[in-house]
Amino acid sequence: MDSKRSNRRGFLKDSAALAGLAAGGARLGKGQTPGTPPKKVDELIAYGERSRFVTSIRVPVAERHSPDEFGLTFHVLTPLQDSYGIITPSSLHYTATHRGAFVPDIDPREHRLMIHGMVDRPLVFTMDELKRLPYVSRIHFIECLGNRAKPTHKTVQDTHGLTSCAEWTGVPLSLLLKEAGVQNSASWIVAEGAEEVKGASSIPLAKAMDDCIVCYAQNGEPIRPQQGFPLRLMVPGFEGIYQIKYLRRIKVVDRYYMTYDDYGHINPDPKVAALTHQIGPKSVITFPSGGQQLSGPGFYEISGLAWSGAGAIRGVEISTDGGASWMNAELRSPAYRMAHTRFGFHWKWDGKERMLMSRCTDELGTVQPTRAEVAKYWKEPVEKVRIRGADNSVQPWKVGSDGSVHNGLA
Amino acid sequence: MDSKRSNRRGFLKDSAALAGLAAGGARLGKGQTPGTPPKKVDELIAYGERSRFVTSIRVPVAERHSPDEFGLTFHVLTPLQDSYGIITPSSLHYTATHRGAFVPDIDPREHRLMIHGMVDRPLVFTMDELKRLPYVSRIHFIECLGNRAKPTHKTVQDTHGLTSCAEWTGVPLSLLLKEAGVQNSASWIVAEGAEEVKGASSIPLAKAMDDCIVCYAQNGEPIRPQQGFPLRLMVPGFEGIYQIKYLRRIKVVDRYYMTYDDYGHINPDPKVAALTHQIGPKSVITFPSGGQQLSGPGFYEISGLAWSGAGAIRGVEISTDGGASWMNAELRSPAYRMAHTRFGFHWKWDGKERMLMSRCTDELGTVQPTRAEVAKYWKEPVEKVRIRGADNSVQPWKVGSDGSVHNGLA
Repeated sequence: MDSKRSNRRGFLKDSAALAGLAAGGARLGKGQTPGTPPKKVDELIAYGERSRFVTSIRVPVAERHSPDEFGLTFHVLTPLQDSYGIITPSSLHYTATHRGAFVPDIDPREHRLMIHGMVDRPLVFTMDELKRLPYVSRIHFIECLGNRAKPTHKTVQDTHGLTSCAEWTGVPLSLLLKEAGVQNSASWIVAEGAEEVKGASSIPLAKAMDDCIVCYAQNGEPIRPQQGFPLRLMVPGFEGIYQIKYLRRIKVVDRYYMTYDDYGHINPDPKVAALTHQIGPKSVITFPSGGQQLSGPGFYEISGLAWSGAGAIRGVEISTDGGASWMNAELRSPAYRMAHTRFGFHWKWDGKERMLMSRCTDELGTVQPTRAEVAKYWKEPVEKVRIRGADNSVQPWKVGSDGSVHNGLA
Repeated sequence: MDSKRSNRRGFLKDSAALAGLAAGGARLGKGQTPGTPPKKVDELIAYGERSRFVTSIRVPVAERHSPDEFGLTFHVLTPLQDSYGIITPSSLHYTATHRGAFVPDIDPREHRLMIHGMVDRPLVFTMDELKRLPYVSRIHFIECLGNRAKPTHKTVQDTHGLTSCAEWTGVPLSLLLKEAGVQNSASWIVAEGAEEVKGASSIPLAKAMDDCIVCYAQNGEPIRPQQGFPLRLMVPGFEGIYQIKYLRRIKVVDRYYMTYDDYGHINPDPKVAALTHQIGPKSVITFPSGGQQLSGPGFYEISGLAWSGAGAIRGVEISTDGGASWMNAELRSPAYRMAHTRFGFHWKWDGKERMLMSRCTDELGTVQPTRAEVAKYWKEPVEKVRIRGADNSVQPWKVGSDGSVHNGLA
């Protein structure tokens, strides 16, 4: 990645005596407990860690849709119940893979991106070459199509943990495509990753030329291996499977290809197709949420996240009576386009059983539907509705009179 | 922090067999090298790590101003030469401490924040109580007053590594002060931390009621210990020493106190005082910067960061001829108020020796000065100018005809 690394390591080593001196000179203040053992000080200086009192973790789930045909889908869920603001720490960003938890160990010096197909000038880029090009930094969410709440789920990590949000930095895909010279008859691209299953997606050329980014950085440092190191295609607002990890090839074509047939995310049925490409509008309350506990009646800050593949969140409403009435929440963070947006609602709990819900409206004016509305659309009973495509239905959380919080779908 | 942690740990443990199964099922693709050893998979699922090819680190420096009186100033610098976008990863956020590298190991369940002094109702908050209040999330930089470039510095980490930028989440200080009931005659607050030296700063009440935040989260997770876990006062745009770590006490008063006398950051001399409270406007080129190497003539993306304590960055200019002429750069990220803003400039290097500079203008129209302009202000020769207060002068980087890049101040 960088030629100066070994020198830096050397400098750190040389500084160890200095760090030791500094640590040795520190005395404990009144009421303070001993901190990090001195032997670790130089490591903590190099790359800091979180407090030993902070233990929030991702949890894995695996679903075997049809082993012979599709292999194993392996999901690792973000602990949204412990989230703050809109940035998901890279260490806690959700990940979804096929055929196991395997993460390619790619040497960035060896990695290449090829752009070919219906172009005038096929191109191959090294990572260094990509970094010599103009770039942008944008905060965007990613959400997996599999992010569907079930009645059996206990926590918001279970129901909604397959979405995360980060600052992504890289080269606009439009710049690369213009450089390659897209031919007039082209209308789609197929983007392919370097992992074992060769994750690939067909993306409309109009989207590719609009706001897609060939990213090499996430939250201010190189993309994490589980998120696609060294290169990931960001397709803002589209479902996660389009955000190709370990990106190595973009082919410009004149039709879509059913490349990732274990998903069928390009659905010929227009009624379903509209539910798969673009995410949301969607929102969920992260506090209070399933498994959490209110200590007694009084004021609480209902907190949550809202996002939409169609752009910025315009507003969020809260219901404390299971959807009978709605009140405006406040946006607690700026509302960026295709990004998680934090909302809050200052609520006085009266100690009675309550059903909490949130629903959002995006910049197009589209309102997040309740599960009842989804069921009505599909002409199915609400308790048995089968979710097709993305699930952006309203999530209810039931607050018991004892302050316990449970999944309202159960 | 959270009552459910031990259960989650348990769940993770139970899932180890599952994770092992998944990892065991993975096979290597053509050209792939073996990845993370399987035994670590469950740890990486819980809390991810960066690629082994990414080794960028913070480096420590220590300055002994006057040992008897002030003790040791310990600085750990952010590797800005490896930065992307505007978010600094929490593990790489700069830190500055006094009397060594000691970091308090605070149990958040024991931590309290007291608000007292000239208020109608003195208040004491637990962390849980603070989290029940309305909050905001904002992206802000922090910069140490000691962030001064010297001719002896080699890299941008040396010259400018005492600034970082993160998403900060917490309760508006104005809300807490209103709850306490600030008395009419009050005009300042003194904020105090829990570390050994009891870091404390006097802050004008007008600023405290404006945009200060009592933060418990940084980049989507609890604040890191080196940044003030569990509570830090964010004073947007003010120099780092005001951003009190381990915040435990806010006293409302009617004058300022010279609490942190090793700095004298409240300076009775109005000519200097204006240079210490509020940072910037300031900018620096992070690529190409000292110690980096251009591979030969051709196109490069000049990249850098700009920020101002007075608000948003309006524009950045680039000079490639040592300040004789200036061209407009482009903002590559949104320009948030009191936040790092990424700029870029697509530059064709002709292979000749060049002196690169950046200068920014903030929303008030204030332009970052060159070092020559600073010297003129102080009526001192430019090569000997003594920087008082914050140094926001233009940083020159000299590109040699061999592509090597060196500190232009040397």
